[in-house]
Amino acid sequence: MTGVVSWVFLNNQFLQEHEAKLQVKDLAVQRGYGIFDFLKFRDYHPVFFDDHLDRFFNSAKEMRLEIDCSRDQLKDIIVSLIKKNNNPDGGIRVTVTGGYSPDGYQITQPNLIISQHKFSSPTKEQFEKGLKLVSYSHQRQLPHIKTIDYLMAIWLQPWIRENNADDVLYQKGGIVCECPRSNFFIVTTDNRIITPGENILKGISRKKLIEIAKNYFQVEEKNITLEDIANAKEAFISSTTKLVLPVVQIDRRRFSGTTTVTSKLFTELSKL
Amino acid sequence: MTGVVSWVFLNNQFLQEHEAKLQVKDLAVQRGYGIFDFLKFRDYHPVFFDDHLDRFFNSAKEMRLEIDCSRDQLKDIIVSLIKKNNNPDGGIRVTVTGGYSPDGYQITQPNLIISQHKFSSPTKEQFEKGLKLVSYSHQRQLPHIKTIDYLMAIWLQPWIRENNADDVLYQKGGIVCECPRSNFFIVTTDNRIITPGENILKGISRKKLIEIAKNYFQVEEKNITLEDIANAKEAFISSTTKLVLPVVQIDRRRFSGTTTVTSKLFTELSKL
Repeated sequence: MTGVVSWVFLNNQFLQEHEAKLQVKDLAVQRGYGIFDFLKFRDYHPVFFDDHLDRFFNSAKEMRLEIDCSRDQLKDIIVSLIKKNNNPDGGIRVTVTGGYSPDGYQITQPNLIISQHKFSSPTKEQFEKGLKLVSYSHQRQLPHIKTIDYLMAIWLQPWIRENNADDVLYQKGGIVCECPRSNFFIVTTDNRIITPGENILKGISRKKLIEIAKNYFQVEEKNITLEDIANAKEAFISSTTKLVLPVVQIDRRRFSGTTTVTSKLFTELSKL
Repeated sequence: MTGVVSWVFLNNQFLQEHEAKLQVKDLAVQRGYGIFDFLKFRDYHPVFFDDHLDRFFNSAKEMRLEIDCSRDQLKDIIVSLIKKNNNPDGGIRVTVTGGYSPDGYQITQPNLIISQHKFSSPTKEQFEKGLKLVSYSHQRQLPHIKTIDYLMAIWLQPWIRENNADDVLYQKGGIVCECPRSNFFIVTTDNRIITPGENILKGISRKKLIEIAKNYFQVEEKNITLEDIANAKEAFISSTTKLVLPVVQIDRRRFSGTTTVTSKLFTELSKL
């Protein structure tokens, strides 16, 4: 996701990006309280639209943020924004904050922000290069909700670079969870695909990938240990922006370069 | 803290509260990334000014947020804001966010917000009534930094009310840490005062209280277990807004009503 594109929808109107503003007493600014979802669109059409909206409304409900418009109204606004910005391909971020709290603590009427973003799908070169991950002991709070909390992920950036890694893989007590913006998978030597099933945010790409993978492989949603990683044949991540990318290294564990299963899944997911 | 008072300082100017706005691409709105500090002032004079600014600049540094003004300049702005708002007593919140990030992830030139808030010191009735706490298994991320992350605290509010409690006491694996906005202390039957020394935000009131308490009692900064609470004689919390308040109940453990040590410390801290 790189940069907001011209028009933004804020609460009940379309505004130019630099005019889309929130009062500083919003609960996101005061207390980091908010949720979002991010979906992509191709040829002006949102991809996995209903899956993203399902998750979005669920996040809002879990965080007691009352969305002031119906699902259909929200769809209409998103489609209108895409037309208005007139780029056939890109990403839409729907953010909801805790609103202008009278005491800086209570949730009030939320602010709804819909912004459009450019992003580039991973290139062939990026797929071939793969990702280097470094593990860090951390468990996201309220992991099943897509909150705006990326405090740890951003705070860790210099440490990730010091470790010559592209991203961090959270683990807690040796049990691997997820990356800050993607889900994690391994492929065992007997071609089983394993991905964590709890204490994670369940990505839409993850969901689609599991559905596809079940046509070809045995898929298991269960804990992955650092030892499982040591014994794995392949590892990869999934996300809306990155689709599927091979992981070539986690800490000191290098993967051999085989990406047969990962490539197969990338090809199949790309078709959707 | 209840409500912002008229003038707010944003980056380089004084603005009316409703005009103090941030673009929605600020990293606080996008990723919950920011820090703050909160100090009170009496008769137009900030209390423990340098202690709060020490912590503020330390939080900013730890979070790689570059403050664009010197300590003296910041002091001048705060004092000017207090004069401008023309209330002799109240609170000042200094917030710094991750700025208008080009990709919604990188930290840029931070936004600096200084807002004034009304707050009422605890009344005699509140002191006598005390606080009921309910414990919850949670460890704040980056606990030593005063970040804007209060996701869990706000999310837990209905659960706190369901438990007929006034606030939550975070514990992890039976080791007690802190409340979301205050530090926690117990008094043992032999009059030792114990407060957690790690995995917490070190409050300014906590610091002053420890200094004072050492004149009268043995003070230990070390882990407190739920068992220690069961055996304690008194428990209390400290914060800038609440000063010192007795804890009358934690989960099912009721305290007998003795607040001799707590009262002594409240009286001594009030003198400062």
